[in-house]
Amino acid sequence: MLDKPVRGFPLREFEERLERAQKLMSTNDLAGILLMSEPEVRYFSGFNTQFWQSPTRPWFLFVPAEKKPIAVIPEIGAILMRSTWIDDIRTWSAPCPKDDGISLLQDLLDPFSKSKARLGIMKGHETGLRMPLMDYERLMSSLPGVELVDATNMIRHLRMIKSVAEIEKIEHICKIASQTFEKAGKIFYKGQPLAEAFRAFRIECLTQGADDVPYLAGGADQGGYRDIISPPSNRPLQSGDILMFDTGATFDGYFCDFDRNYAVENVDDISRRAYDTLWRATEAGISAARPGISCQDLFQSMQNVISEMDDQGGEVGRYGHGLGMQLTEWPSHATFDETVLEENMVITLEPSLNYGEGRIMVHEENLVVQNGAPRLLSVRAEPEIPIIGFS
Amino acid sequence: MLDKPVRGFPLREFEERLERAQKLMSTNDLAGILLMSEPEVRYFSGFNTQFWQSPTRPWFLFVPAEKKPIAVIPEIGAILMRSTWIDDIRTWSAPCPKDDGISLLQDLLDPFSKSKARLGIMKGHETGLRMPLMDYERLMSSLPGVELVDATNMIRHLRMIKSVAEIEKIEHICKIASQTFEKAGKIFYKGQPLAEAFRAFRIECLTQGADDVPYLAGGADQGGYRDIISPPSNRPLQSGDILMFDTGATFDGYFCDFDRNYAVENVDDISRRAYDTLWRATEAGISAARPGISCQDLFQSMQNVISEMDDQGGEVGRYGHGLGMQLTEWPSHATFDETVLEENMVITLEPSLNYGEGRIMVHEENLVVQNGAPRLLSVRAEPEIPIIGFS
Repeated sequence: MLDKPVRGFPLREFEERLERAQKLMSTNDLAGILLMSEPEVRYFSGFNTQFWQSPTRPWFLFVPAEKKPIAVIPEIGAILMRSTWIDDIRTWSAPCPKDDGISLLQDLLDPFSKSKARLGIMKGHETGLRMPLMDYERLMSSLPGVELVDATNMIRHLRMIKSVAEIEKIEHICKIASQTFEKAGKIFYKGQPLAEAFRAFRIECLTQGADDVPYLAGGADQGGYRDIISPPSNRPLQSGDILMFDTGATFDGYFCDFDRNYAVENVDDISRRAYDTLWRATEAGISAARPGISCQDLFQSMQNVISEMDDQGGEVGRYGHGLGMQLTEWPSHATFDETVLEENMVITLEPSLNYGEGRIMVHEENLVVQNGAPRLLSVRAEPEIPIIGFS
Repeated sequence: MLDKPVRGFPLREFEERLERAQKLMSTNDLAGILLMSEPEVRYFSGFNTQFWQSPTRPWFLFVPAEKKPIAVIPEIGAILMRSTWIDDIRTWSAPCPKDDGISLLQDLLDPFSKSKARLGIMKGHETGLRMPLMDYERLMSSLPGVELVDATNMIRHLRMIKSVAEIEKIEHICKIASQTFEKAGKIFYKGQPLAEAFRAFRIECLTQGADDVPYLAGGADQGGYRDIISPPSNRPLQSGDILMFDTGATFDGYFCDFDRNYAVENVDDISRRAYDTLWRATEAGISAARPGISCQDLFQSMQNVISEMDDQGGEVGRYGHGLGMQLTEWPSHATFDETVLEENMVITLEPSLNYGEGRIMVHEENLVVQNGAPRLLSVRAEPEIPIIGFS
């Protein structure tokens, strides 16, 4: 197994995140931001637990314009939260449907209502409300003086730029996934049901050092796959299949997200050409991915190549995205996204194309944007589709 | 590996779910329910994908009071949705921040606004809003005639009662987890960092046939653990530890959720007593878990035993919960929950207690409520804490 980066972050990391947030809050005249989603609570506190898998309990972190964040959380999380840098931890015995943290939040936020302050909440693209809508409405109606502002763009800007320690974690899980893909010829076999190939991949990825493999998608079909989000069937792998695996594995709460294509024993010309086109589109994206370019221009750099085979654009809706604490993060490499790349953004390049008879092919790499050429975090795919033969 | 139940469900299963829902909608004078959360969309459509891991795209299913559900989803999901029993599938190229399905929803729901209809949405306990709040507000303000009603209790009632096919899936993953726990003495070893024990458990659980292990929590410490939601440290397992693993593994989209405690080589008297108390509390819960009993009374049946050692109640906040498509589902075995158990509910019994010096112990089993004694889905834990010795 690879040497692991240190888990967690030094105190300075959280202090810097808070400083950057408070600077933006000052610019935007915000008195605080109320957060309740897993990545954001973790980003500002270091609170890292799988317990979010249970939808039963809400968790809150309030980031004030001055001073440290305040946690308002179920009692069951108190010990873990006390191990973070957060001092002010307010808890209740949850679940408690009649008052799941609401009166604690009211006590905390009432002074802001009285002073007619502006508070931020995340309500924009790629967010959700991780608390009952009914409780949210009750909370807000009890704070009539608060002016609510969408803080999505502020948080998005903070989280898109990764620290050195964050990049280390993403790089580590990318290496683990790359090593797992290197074993493809050994863990997959002819006649293996696709579902068993998925199982073998997960086990190998854990063996190589992943903490978990929360996302694994793939497909396999004669001359090309047609769907990239279905669960695996029990159809056996067979000669002439194109096989694709796309994995979002994690280390210390950070994701990789890339895929690999394989031809089983042989490949038809059009699939070979599709692979080559995607590979060159990715190459164009790698060349283009420098500080200062917009995501829409980055999309176009890949689309210029893809259009050799497919000028419709695919149903994926974009050619890659941000990556980090979530499998997919802002920005999107798409015509609508004017985000300008900056140093230390971690992104995927994920061109896709549709070709003969409803087939789709996707290809994905992970990289960090830096001055000059980007640094690839995934081991670059072979320029020609690898043919795996089964003994 | 165990023989697997058939994946997916026969058409009749979805027809019955819809019939039951529409009967409740008729009783509650609802013209339709708009759903957007993974379990609910899957429950009514069979749409089963890990793609929900990406927060980028919203997915909608509208269940009308008559006729079949209508899917409003990103184009990338169209092929998979067409493989379900849903016929009316409306798609857009997502992500599209300016209009992520909103105008499609407006077209669909505008007639209900014009007719001043009552529509349901889930906004109660244990729910969240899986779309941007801003988009939700925009959608609803464009439907001024719609009277919105909280449909949480209706959906909760439907989903709490499991079908035979659902119970088969839960039983299967419970068997897999039970077999994994049986290997404890083989996969754990002295000096093994807890994080590596987690890895070994995940790999064994996959090897035994789990599709995935989305939730794995645990703890190990001298004479007892103090925290049950932290990620595993690299502290090596050692003589005198109490080791606990709690797993939410999945088969075909259904969860198990139970734990096991082990003493490493030896155990102190108070931990032995804590284990015995929890085991007997669970036994009391098993005896009590029959159709007609309320969850608060079920809680009390366990608390009567727990109070021998701990009359404060633990920070877990309840002594078990529902189980199925999510790791934790309604109801809660807690003083606030008046839900009455019915045949074919699948629940966990999960008493916990605090004992000397901040130590906590938890114990959990999974069962299906039926006429007469319940049927255990997990292989019952040993009545005395198992001592695992490392060679």
